[in-house]
Amino acid sequence: MVRIGREHFITRFGPELRAVAEVEPGGTAVFETHDCWHGQLRSEDQRMKGLDFTVMNPATGPLGIIGAKPGDTLAVKVLSIRTGRTGLVSILPGDGVLGHMVKESKTRMLPIEDGKVIFDGIAISAVPMVGVMGVAASGDEAGDVSTATPGRHGGNMDTKDVREGATVYFPVRQYGALLAMGDVHALMGDGEVCVTGCETEAEVEVRVDIAKRTVLDWPAIDDGESFMIVASAEDLDKAAEEATAAAVSLISRTQDIPWEEAYMLASLAVDLRISQCVDPRRTVRAVIPHRILKRPIGL
Amino acid sequence: MVRIGREHFITRFGPELRAVAEVEPGGTAVFETHDCWHGQLRSEDQRMKGLDFTVMNPATGPLGIIGAKPGDTLAVKVLSIRTGRTGLVSILPGDGVLGHMVKESKTRMLPIEDGKVIFDGIAISAVPMVGVMGVAASGDEAGDVSTATPGRHGGNMDTKDVREGATVYFPVRQYGALLAMGDVHALMGDGEVCVTGCETEAEVEVRVDIAKRTVLDWPAIDDGESFMIVASAEDLDKAAEEATAAAVSLISRTQDIPWEEAYMLASLAVDLRISQCVDPRRTVRAVIPHRILKRPIGL
Repeated sequence: MVRIGREHFITRFGPELRAVAEVEPGGTAVFETHDCWHGQLRSEDQRMKGLDFTVMNPATGPLGIIGAKPGDTLAVKVLSIRTGRTGLVSILPGDGVLGHMVKESKTRMLPIEDGKVIFDGIAISAVPMVGVMGVAASGDEAGDVSTATPGRHGGNMDTKDVREGATVYFPVRQYGALLAMGDVHALMGDGEVCVTGCETEAEVEVRVDIAKRTVLDWPAIDDGESFMIVASAEDLDKAAEEATAAAVSLISRTQDIPWEEAYMLASLAVDLRISQCVDPRRTVRAVIPHRILKRPIGL
Repeated sequence: MVRIGREHFITRFGPELRAVAEVEPGGTAVFETHDCWHGQLRSEDQRMKGLDFTVMNPATGPLGIIGAKPGDTLAVKVLSIRTGRTGLVSILPGDGVLGHMVKESKTRMLPIEDGKVIFDGIAISAVPMVGVMGVAASGDEAGDVSTATPGRHGGNMDTKDVREGATVYFPVRQYGALLAMGDVHALMGDGEVCVTGCETEAEVEVRVDIAKRTVLDWPAIDDGESFMIVASAEDLDKAAEEATAAAVSLISRTQDIPWEEAYMLASLAVDLRISQCVDPRRTVRAVIPHRILKRPIGL
């Protein structure tokens, strides 16, 4: 078992990453993760102003997976997510879906007790999830690989299904894959509308493997019920289109049916779900239930 | 019990509607609904070309609710949806999320047997839902009130949760409310990505009532688990913003908490879900679980 401490973190998923630890396929690792503010926000009195933005949205790692190479698919099984005992949720003018209506920054500290997040006296079941998880991007992939931004490399996907028991798949771009993660939420609604969930430190234990999966264009999640493709783009409509295109192509290839049939099947039984609409790119997942398929996705 | 036959249909939810039948609050009605093509598409050999587009997307009705007046909220409880024995799904160039990739029109006829929709030998559980349901719009409401388009009056919301057991709420704009519905799907995925679900004729039985609900800006659905606000706009991002704004305002008002608190609570526990992204306006619903509230929504 490898353990990667919080002192090892990245703020970009660029191709220049170097592993701080390595593990064989089939091995397990624990990532000690910072919250999205790198622990700088510690009380309800604090505001975002004055924080060190160069260390925000940190992702612990990267972990090298021995033998992983470009063209492979990395499988990351989330074995457990242990959150801190408190979380924070925060709003600030200009951020989130209704940022134009926010007059001043506010921060709320939320106890996390017995599997519940306590907000204003209401106990809501915690559903811990990893907001940022990704691998090193390729050099020729265009654009923003800040850990604040989601993309084909994963990153800030803010997708609720990256939770205990799920397996997350990434197209490998660099030798060793170079996996990093952070930004755990004890609780988050689809959309993450105010720009934060219940942000908390955590320890995330995963098992990594090199999967003989069908080639993926985007990260994907399998929670045992469904296979989900997680696509990000400049707006929700474009993200929905990317997710749909990838899902229809995947169904057509793995089920060996014409593209047109796969498109109709998707319209009947694949769900497009909003993951988040507040990061530098928006994220939509296409949820393909296993039960609508004749053959498993993958080899 | 009132029954409205298929011969009574509208293609616009404008303020000019006149009731074809009336019922007292608390009364029930059965709507015999056409499919979205008005029954014109009857076989897999048929194409969309040559159909009479002036009768497409018909909504059966309207039903007048005695005593309903502008400012009221109409509650429509869906008691049952009985679909036909077959449904149709169709694609055509230029339509749907991937319309640019469709080379030619195709239609598939789908048996609906024992609660299953059969697609290419796969039996998928039917989940019948009403695609179009709405009330007469106000005269000064801007824009498109074609039955093909969703809006504040309801209309082509294509939201899966308008199903058996749910109660759908509409802000009443005209005396009598003037309820009409159609476009039943035996099955549809969130997004309705190819532009059609499993389109079928149906009989929909509802109970109507005038609810003493808190004022709504948009249609809403209560399925017993959650209260959902259904907002539509020119793109998904704008629809997501409208749904979020309405949900946060509703939480703040009904829970008597500051707007900022409601915004944070929404980010933690309200889900934004895509209903459809293929109609003339896109539809997003904000799903507010009852369990995160201290008080019921409404009076």
